[in-house]
Amino acid sequence: MRRRVVIVGGGFGGLTCAQALDGADVDITLVDRTNHHLFQPLLYQVAMAGLSPADIAYPIRSILHDQENCRVILGDVVSIDREAKHVVLADGEELEYDWLVLAAGAKTSYFGHDEWEKYAPGLKSLSDAIEIRRRVLVAFEDAERTTDPQVERELLTFAVIGGGPTGVELAGAIAELAKHVLAGDFRSIRPEKAHVILVEAGERILAGFPPDLSQLAVEQLEELGVDVRTGARVTRIDVDGVKLQRKDADGVTVDDEIRARTVLWGAGVGGTRLAEDLGAPLDRSGRVLVRRDTTIPDHEEIFCIGDMAAHLVDGKPLPGLSPVAMQQGRYVADIIRFGLPRSRRNDFVYFDKGSMATIGRSRAIAMAAKMHLSGFLAWGAWLFIHVWFLMGFKNRLVVMFTWAWSYLSYRRGARLITDRGGEVFVHGGKHR
Amino acid sequence: MRRRVVIVGGGFGGLTCAQALDGADVDITLVDRTNHHLFQPLLYQVAMAGLSPADIAYPIRSILHDQENCRVILGDVVSIDREAKHVVLADGEELEYDWLVLAAGAKTSYFGHDEWEKYAPGLKSLSDAIEIRRRVLVAFEDAERTTDPQVERELLTFAVIGGGPTGVELAGAIAELAKHVLAGDFRSIRPEKAHVILVEAGERILAGFPPDLSQLAVEQLEELGVDVRTGARVTRIDVDGVKLQRKDADGVTVDDEIRARTVLWGAGVGGTRLAEDLGAPLDRSGRVLVRRDTTIPDHEEIFCIGDMAAHLVDGKPLPGLSPVAMQQGRYVADIIRFGLPRSRRNDFVYFDKGSMATIGRSRAIAMAAKMHLSGFLAWGAWLFIHVWFLMGFKNRLVVMFTWAWSYLSYRRGARLITDRGGEVFVHGGKHR
Repeated sequence: MRRRVVIVGGGFGGLTCAQALDGADVDITLVDRTNHHLFQPLLYQVAMAGLSPADIAYPIRSILHDQENCRVILGDVVSIDREAKHVVLADGEELEYDWLVLAAGAKTSYFGHDEWEKYAPGLKSLSDAIEIRRRVLVAFEDAERTTDPQVERELLTFAVIGGGPTGVELAGAIAELAKHVLAGDFRSIRPEKAHVILVEAGERILAGFPPDLSQLAVEQLEELGVDVRTGARVTRIDVDGVKLQRKDADGVTVDDEIRARTVLWGAGVGGTRLAEDLGAPLDRSGRVLVRRDTTIPDHEEIFCIGDMAAHLVDGKPLPGLSPVAMQQGRYVADIIRFGLPRSRRNDFVYFDKGSMATIGRSRAIAMAAKMHLSGFLAWGAWLFIHVWFLMGFKNRLVVMFTWAWSYLSYRRGARLITDRGGEVFVHGGKHR
Repeated sequence: MRRRVVIVGGGFGGLTCAQALDGADVDITLVDRTNHHLFQPLLYQVAMAGLSPADIAYPIRSILHDQENCRVILGDVVSIDREAKHVVLADGEELEYDWLVLAAGAKTSYFGHDEWEKYAPGLKSLSDAIEIRRRVLVAFEDAERTTDPQVERELLTFAVIGGGPTGVELAGAIAELAKHVLAGDFRSIRPEKAHVILVEAGERILAGFPPDLSQLAVEQLEELGVDVRTGARVTRIDVDGVKLQRKDADGVTVDDEIRARTVLWGAGVGGTRLAEDLGAPLDRSGRVLVRRDTTIPDHEEIFCIGDMAAHLVDGKPLPGLSPVAMQQGRYVADIIRFGLPRSRRNDFVYFDKGSMATIGRSRAIAMAAKMHLSGFLAWGAWLFIHVWFLMGFKNRLVVMFTWAWSYLSYRRGARLITDRGGEVFVHGGKHR
């Protein structure tokens, strides 16, 4: 009988692993909770009404359409029986495996403050992006209607928590939405007066990049009117906004407050329930601490890759980037294809081709090898690489066209407030 | 002070009326429960994963961006005080008017069987379309996973209730989705074996068209493999499917059953709560019976247009089509612009430029003046006219491109199952 491979998750890691096993003498089952592979680096564009959900997502079964050794199922893995070697789905079905590849990603973490979630949604899935889009657009709509200047000010204040790539993208994109896209569409308010505040607890934003690039990012954000506050720790998020603590110039801790009706969470990434249940050691963020061959201790047949894993190199985990996940996927596929026992495996080595973060139209920072780029050049590189890797030729063209269009016209087509209930969520109405 | 016009609803009727009042010496407030104008004739394409929501919807405030006498607000009108001349929004705000234009559309009606709604969603809004898309795609996913042949058969059976344009479009589109788009993407099932059944209580489908075109529509549906059942009255819809009654060849009433996990409702259109509360007489479907100048009795300042109104001509209501609503919108705008009292108004006259219904790729029927068209020619006319009237130049291009692409490649890009809860709805799990 052919060896059975179960891959959990159709993100960059899981999908690449499945594809790299094309033609191998194994039976692959790829399980995902959604039916689509998501091009997560552009998720913030959906949240900011620049792209439609379908532009950055593609059905997993279409991608694997021609790969005969792989079947795709829509399902939710709830537990793993490592002794009996099967995973259990939410509806009770069991999938037996000889090799198990866990690539289930991460979830938003509120560092023990799950009560903040309803006030400050994170950005991990298409549903999250649609929800953020709705909140941001409704805030402008409510501001147009209110007659209370204080309420208007709070509605037009947007706090983004976390100065990592996601937070920077969101903050830059809200500022652009307000300044360029919405300007002139309203009668009572001036959307370009929206106040966007990026809050970072650490000393600088984009700490994964060298200090000079962080500084260039701050400058570009400030050009867009974003207020960057570093060294500010969030102590509370509620319906009124965000409470902060920071040290003043003399090193004295002072309390601060941002009164904002819209707060977005770009800060923490944590482990999933699946990682917790695995019985393997976890790092502080709940990621699975894997061995050098990306397996978990005592189970050379269970791999854990991508955002779900903490793969330490010189004591530091590899970053949560798609190239890491994809390279791990290919590495694992080779082991499976040749049925290598642990003793014959080389350690996984990440080849860093560079990384980049976008700040807005024509604004980005990038580094590759020793080169540091910023501004239009970095943005051009970012654009090219991101569109290039978008799944599906049609999506690539639509995204290019949509961007060219909104670049030239300053208009955006995906400014929809949809809600399955058919009702409109009005900020003031539901919260107070 | 300038006369105040309140328009309720940003569909074809309300939006056209607002636009026709451009430059008039009035202050217009357009209120809509959503932020977008929806190109409803293509809604079924979103439900069938052919187009993205943003392709057929455009922010109302963008459309009216340059019209200075018009402001747009996102709000839900809950009541109308005809004596005090104001409308009341859900949050308590009151909008005073001198002229009131009601163009709030219709909602899906289950003819007194509201308990059917959860089993058989209708198609009126983007949210409805996204929900239908999810159900149809999940049915195929569940069928791929089940090992019970009877369950598989029920999952791959799709019943569409109502042989009007919406039902015909949905039935044709499911058949095409199964046959062309999904074929080959699955391992355990053959999507092209899906069984699509169109149920109509009357003698023939598309009863708004002449009998010869109805017959041509049936033939085109049958080419696609759709099973058309006329003279079949729905008596019950539940988790198992649809119960029907029909007369056999001898005129004896027989009971019949369709065991289907997915049932879609394209049948009834009914009045909204707003129409009921207006105090004006309603027709059997809950539409407001308007006078010849589209006003309600005793209130020459309150107009009711589009799907919300039953405008009788020779005892028959005008059809619920966008040209009727748009022509009414322009007619009302003229009355308001010149402040005409009832005595000086001409009756509204509908100029029928023809109508058409689409059945699938290259399949449609159309009539204009005395001409009856069917097949590719009718479809071409349908395509051209629908794309042409799509709001926004960019949307027009994207839709054209998307269609050309899916026409040539038999692929569809909007096959997304999204859910705000992040969970996947599994048919078997929730219903049984």
